[in-house]
Amino acid sequence: MKPPVMLYACHQVDQDAWLSALAAADPGLEVRVWPDIGDPAEIDYAFLWKQPRGILDGLVNLKAIFSLGAGVDHVLRDDSLPDHVPLVRMVDPTLVSGMVEFVVMRVLHYHRHMPAYERQQRDGFWRPLPQVPAAQRRVGILGLGELGAAAGRALAGLGFDVTGWSRTARDLAGLRCVAGADGLTFLLEQAEILVCLLPLTDDTRGILNRDTLSRLPRGAFLINAARGGHLVEADLIPLLDTGHLAGATLDVFAVEPLPAGHPFWFHPAITVLPHAAAVTHPVTAARIIAGNIARHRAGQGLVNVVDRQRGY
Amino acid sequence: MKPPVMLYACHQVDQDAWLSALAAADPGLEVRVWPDIGDPAEIDYAFLWKQPRGILDGLVNLKAIFSLGAGVDHVLRDDSLPDHVPLVRMVDPTLVSGMVEFVVMRVLHYHRHMPAYERQQRDGFWRPLPQVPAAQRRVGILGLGELGAAAGRALAGLGFDVTGWSRTARDLAGLRCVAGADGLTFLLEQAEILVCLLPLTDDTRGILNRDTLSRLPRGAFLINAARGGHLVEADLIPLLDTGHLAGATLDVFAVEPLPAGHPFWFHPAITVLPHAAAVTHPVTAARIIAGNIARHRAGQGLVNVVDRQRGY
Ligand SMILES: NC(=O)c1ccc[n+]([C@@H]2O[C@H](COP(=O)([O-])OP(=O)(O)OC[C@H]3O[C@@H](n4cnc5c(N)ncnc54)[C@H](OP(=O)(O)O)[C@@H]3O)[C@@H](O)[C@H]2O)c1
Ligand SMILES: NC(=O)c1ccc[n+]([C@@H]2O[C@H](COP(=O)([O-])OP(=O)(O)OC[C@H]3O[C@@H](n4cnc5c(N)ncnc54)[C@H](OP(=O)(O)O)[C@@H]3O)[C@@H](O)[C@H]2O)c1
Repeated sequence: MKPPVMLYACHQVDQDAWLSALAAADPGLEVRVWPDIGDPAEIDYAFLWKQPRGILDGLVNLKAIFSLGAGVDHVLRDDSLPDHVPLVRMVDPTLVSGMVEFVVMRVLHYHRHMPAYERQQRDGFWRPLPQVPAAQRRVGILGLGELGAAAGRALAGLGFDVTGWSRTARDLAGLRCVAGADGLTFLLEQAEILVCLLPLTDDTRGILNRDTLSRLPRGAFLINAARGGHLVEADLIPLLDTGHLAGATLDVFAVEPLPAGHPFWFHPAITVLPHAAAVTHPVTAARIIAGNIARHRAGQGLVNVVDRQRGY
Repeated sequence: MKPPVMLYACHQVDQDAWLSALAAADPGLEVRVWPDIGDPAEIDYAFLWKQPRGILDGLVNLKAIFSLGAGVDHVLRDDSLPDHVPLVRMVDPTLVSGMVEFVVMRVLHYHRHMPAYERQQRDGFWRPLPQVPAAQRRVGILGLGELGAAAGRALAGLGFDVTGWSRTARDLAGLRCVAGADGLTFLLEQAEILVCLLPLTDDTRGILNRDTLSRLPRGAFLINAARGGHLVEADLIPLLDTGHLAGATLDVFAVEPLPAGHPFWFHPAITVLPHAAAVTHPVTAARIIAGNIARHRAGQGLVNVVDRQRGY
């Protein structure tokens, strides 16, 4: 069996770290960095992130595509991607724990009135605020996949009242699981802190909008750690300015980096993060890719294949 | 048996909430609010917080003193407190979970570079920072009692590398436990985030000082959620200004409320909280006091009695 050949075409990541992690994870893997791809017919696998459109054209022996990120919307943006080649998304335990940390951190920040305490400090004002037990704090999570389920479990472990929403019905210990349109209505009407951990698909694009966010209780907080495309950006600031929403943590944006001068940079109730909620770690992730390639070459199925119909 | 009579002398708390919680927890308990104490010989129990000095003089039938707080330093400040009457401190699960939330929140805030990201947002600057896995982030906890042990367990559960320090040797799953002077040296030399959850005693007063804080690795963060007297206040700002310490969260102060004009209010690397890390909840705490009184009247021992010699 000839050694496998991988096309590497990942944009906006640390290329040296990825190449050395891939070499360490599978010394037998030959990695060709786009655009130096050699004979296109020799390419077995492609490893992609925000790749230029059409670069897989002519890779007649391509057997699988690996996405660097958990979300594949960046990869699927290229509508010339071959339909018949399996697309594998990233499921990396280090990425999951990074997201759990991020969500727990920001939920606690809002739960424990930190924006108000920071204002009080600026004003030199000493006033303890009423402390709501976690069991009486309602958190809603959109998406109960690898990330949403892990974040939900961690929050439930801290005692929060957690409701999670998914497409198909789920059953997770310690969380209230809902699905479908009625489930979303139920969740929105009670979530004092709303966390978005959905994949970006045709069904979820723009799901955080004036209508849905208005259904949250007054004074609610939003944490978007999924994709910029989930939020209708123009709808957010009016909801903050009327006080219907009390604050938002945004890690992801319609355009990244968030353009200079964008009003989100300056709004006092918005915390802007540079798409840093959870990163794929080259070392752990390269091992996962290498394991998947080994399984595939041994004639076993690939794991974490994206359902192209669903879009995630 | 005549119904028990309690002297209530708690300062700076919500008196109505406490009186109704006590009435609900034990309708048979007669509560007399200081200074209307009636016949001093009728008082069986005292419930104290920041009480005026000497108010227990002449309570010849006093059987136990209850502290509203987990720390008894405020109560013991009154050196006329009778030595032979047991002093019971507060151990309240709602207070423990409040402290766990607070410590986890601030450790994650520093672990995940939030002060730097907030500065970047002010500057309109987009730059993801290197994400250190929790397993490589060293957290040190001073004090492994009800609060320190619970906070340590929660941090270990999130994957942090936690070392905890106590007076006597402890053994807690998932944490590195150290004790004594050598243990403190070990802990300080590695703690990137230092959390103080000690009781304030003659041995621990001023334990956060130029010497000990200088032994932390450069760029460390301090979280003091115990007592203001643990920190030598004058030593903190110079350590922050040289960059030896990167930030501090202070919930407690030598003088509370923190006086207007105190430099802690204004320092960009200091987060000031109004002694709000964890509050004793009247409803749960009153039940705990009532349970202790019932045990005592049934001839069983009181639980959570302070060792007056140790001071906690
Ligand atoms: N900001 C960051 O740093 C960062 C890092 C990594 C990932 N992400 C984002 O996080 C997203 C989630 O990742 P994951 O690994 O948790 O994905 P996943 O395992 O595929 O889970 C997706 C979840 O969303 C639910 N869902 C999908 N479409 C839905 C719809 N139309 N209505 C209701 N629920 C729907 C799914 O429901 P079912 O359970 O019924 O399938 C599933 O529970 C990624 O797609 C990515 O965009 C962000
Ligand atoms: N900021 C707030 O809102 C807030 C709220 C509640 C409490 N507090 C503070 O938190 C403190 C801790 O409460 P707790 O309920 O956890 O107390 P605790 O159960 O009595 O535990 C005290 C811990 O500190 C250790 N310790 C005491 N003296 C020591 C010394 N000289 N050297 C090393 N370790 C020492 C003890 O060691 P051993 O295990 O060997 O005995 C024990 O592990 C309270 O005293 C109070 O000041 C603050």
